[in-house]
Amino acid sequence: MLPIVTANGKDERELLGALRSRSGEVDRKVTAVVSEIIENVRLKGDEAVNEYTLKFDGKLPPAIEVSREEINDALTNADENFVSALLNAQENIADFHNRQKHQSFIDPKENGVILGQRIRGLERVGLYVPGGTAAYPSSVLMNAIPAKIAGVKEIVMVTPPTKEGKANPDILVAAAICGVDRVFLLGGAQAVAALAYGTETVPKVDKIVGPGNIYVATAKKLLYGVVDIDMIAGPSEILVLADETAEPKYLAADLMSQAEHDVLASAIMVTTSRKIADETAKELERQVETLSRKEIIKKSLSEFGGIIVCETVDEAVTLANEIAPEHLEVMMENPFEYIGKLDNAGSIFLGKYAPEPLGDYYAGPNHVLPTSGTARFFSPLSVDAFVKKVSYIYYTEDALREASGDIVTLAEKEGLTAHANSIKVRF
Amino acid sequence: MLPIVTANGKDERELLGALRSRSGEVDRKVTAVVSEIIENVRLKGDEAVNEYTLKFDGKLPPAIEVSREEINDALTNADENFVSALLNAQENIADFHNRQKHQSFIDPKENGVILGQRIRGLERVGLYVPGGTAAYPSSVLMNAIPAKIAGVKEIVMVTPPTKEGKANPDILVAAAICGVDRVFLLGGAQAVAALAYGTETVPKVDKIVGPGNIYVATAKKLLYGVVDIDMIAGPSEILVLADETAEPKYLAADLMSQAEHDVLASAIMVTTSRKIADETAKELERQVETLSRKEIIKKSLSEFGGIIVCETVDEAVTLANEIAPEHLEVMMENPFEYIGKLDNAGSIFLGKYAPEPLGDYYAGPNHVLPTSGTARFFSPLSVDAFVKKVSYIYYTEDALREASGDIVTLAEKEGLTAHANSIKVRF
Repeated sequence: MLPIVTANGKDERELLGALRSRSGEVDRKVTAVVSEIIENVRLKGDEAVNEYTLKFDGKLPPAIEVSREEINDALTNADENFVSALLNAQENIADFHNRQKHQSFIDPKENGVILGQRIRGLERVGLYVPGGTAAYPSSVLMNAIPAKIAGVKEIVMVTPPTKEGKANPDILVAAAICGVDRVFLLGGAQAVAALAYGTETVPKVDKIVGPGNIYVATAKKLLYGVVDIDMIAGPSEILVLADETAEPKYLAADLMSQAEHDVLASAIMVTTSRKIADETAKELERQVETLSRKEIIKKSLSEFGGIIVCETVDEAVTLANEIAPEHLEVMMENPFEYIGKLDNAGSIFLGKYAPEPLGDYYAGPNHVLPTSGTARFFSPLSVDAFVKKVSYIYYTEDALREASGDIVTLAEKEGLTAHANSIKVRF
Repeated sequence: MLPIVTANGKDERELLGALRSRSGEVDRKVTAVVSEIIENVRLKGDEAVNEYTLKFDGKLPPAIEVSREEINDALTNADENFVSALLNAQENIADFHNRQKHQSFIDPKENGVILGQRIRGLERVGLYVPGGTAAYPSSVLMNAIPAKIAGVKEIVMVTPPTKEGKANPDILVAAAICGVDRVFLLGGAQAVAALAYGTETVPKVDKIVGPGNIYVATAKKLLYGVVDIDMIAGPSEILVLADETAEPKYLAADLMSQAEHDVLASAIMVTTSRKIADETAKELERQVETLSRKEIIKKSLSEFGGIIVCETVDEAVTLANEIAPEHLEVMMENPFEYIGKLDNAGSIFLGKYAPEPLGDYYAGPNHVLPTSGTARFFSPLSVDAFVKKVSYIYYTEDALREASGDIVTLAEKEGLTAHANSIKVRF
């Protein structure tokens, strides 16, 4: 099921090639369809949105906006264990993200000059939550909590209606717990366009976040600039670094926890121990049969999974940095010494008792992470993603006079004489 | 030249409409051309890059990479005033941006759990610098200095060759001062593609920043995801808020300093004083005749400029927030009281002696700012733009056991049984 290959060989290159091939080009047909949806929603507002809802979701829900009462009812009627788990997760997520919050600063200088940077939450943010089996309450928490902490004034959620024309109640519970302000029963590219431009019913937002299918992702990409968006997420992935002290039973379970997401997910283990490699392969065969999503797991493991055996730890670390995985588990004897060596990853899980699902649901750091090698330059979703910064400058007459020669020199060097003039008229 | 209109009227709406219309849709023809360039550079590397350089720049420079000696010579031979002005600007820019730097954090809890966030500079960044009349040394400073402060290990500059097959020496001076590591004589979409994919000669980078024409901007947009990019910049703009204490001579000069950038630039004044409006209009007529770029200024002022007279200060502030200008000058009696009220702007200039060119060249805050109303959600270029964050999680066996019930509850609620399994196998 999971090929075991040696580092630096042809098989390893093929595996890495397959990994990269998952994030293909933007599909032209999808782009054409989505462009038309966006244009119609921009021009016709609710009328267009309702047409698309009818077309794609089968029928219009009785009300597009979910009432506050229905949201509160979802929370009241929810299973106690579920609510308690969400509340505990919320506490951890809020605690971690509170540490990311930055203050505005001011720098008043002795000569009277004052410089500063003001940081403020965005006015209104849209959160897309998929329907069907991908309606994940944890995703609501991971997007809404940092937005709230950043000081976003209003969070507007959109989610496709169920067949009964309702919202998924689990999603509403998470929304109630996180203080989502409004919920609309809308899905697909039309929901994204409605948030970007605003309609008679749906308020215009400043940023759109949250996962979605190819239509949602394409709409976000096309509307980048009209609004801000979060990262463009690709298929999920895990890389496990393991030495001979690792526990094959855990390794196998963790690889499969990622592989179950979808057939494009990738689970790779890089190890310095051939013995661990062999034992993990056996554990995979054994455990997979007990899992409900075993068909997905088998497919993703055989297409985008692998165990790579390295000669040295340095070689293993270099490979991990090259792959730049979304999730990186360090099952090594002294996991902490690798934090500084691992350049590129979304989130790093250290030691035997930090399995990836701990980060997905509970520990506190965000689970919205850069995929497909983009951890080279993208970062986990954070409070920073929901703020806007403004710089400000105050100069005194004397300070500007002193600077005037330099400014005029630079402006004239660039041929921008009206820039120079705005200094000269003052003196 | 500059229409004076009353707030909340039809004329005002027309002016704002014209302002928004400047950032049009992506041009399909340009996109097709750029897509082909990108694909060829990806597949054929230097061969394709050289073909495009020949085609668009007329001839191949003798060497694609500028030697260290040539960079150093540019600095040695440069005009003393110019170097001194750049060094003073560099000091101010570095001083301001140093305040933006954030530390990695660690949160070790009493139960042995350790959470953290590591912040590190990107490995390698590409800086695009246009050629011809838009070869601005100040742009090199504003992009390279925050990258250096963020800890970027290597800054690679690309800039189109001059007719003599050389680099613009002013750009090299700025590059030398900022510690740019390598300079390549490449321009256009082919330069952006070379940086994104790497070629035999040009190293692959993690992020591409810097201004450019429509081909460069389109290439950056299309390559977003392969690499990170900075904001997609639209035409420049200024909004001046003025009350009856403002000085029409300064107001006129500052409006024109923005209008001279190009015919799509926008300069708008919002004032509570009809008298100031009239006097500023007169000053514009008078001063414009003395300026070398007067044709550009007249055209941009008449098409995208205007003076809007408001009844109240609140009305003026609301209008400024709606327009969300790149540059916002506050020529009001008590300018500081507006910092908190002004929601949306790239950079705010306070009082009579903070003209916009002070920020372009010298004061310290970045001059790469959100345009076309995107200050609603985008921020000035900053040190944050050049870092990558990684979160890390360590749990003890006991801590995971305590959390296990909640994690299994949430995983099973989402139907992700392999996620639950990775917890269960441990206990």
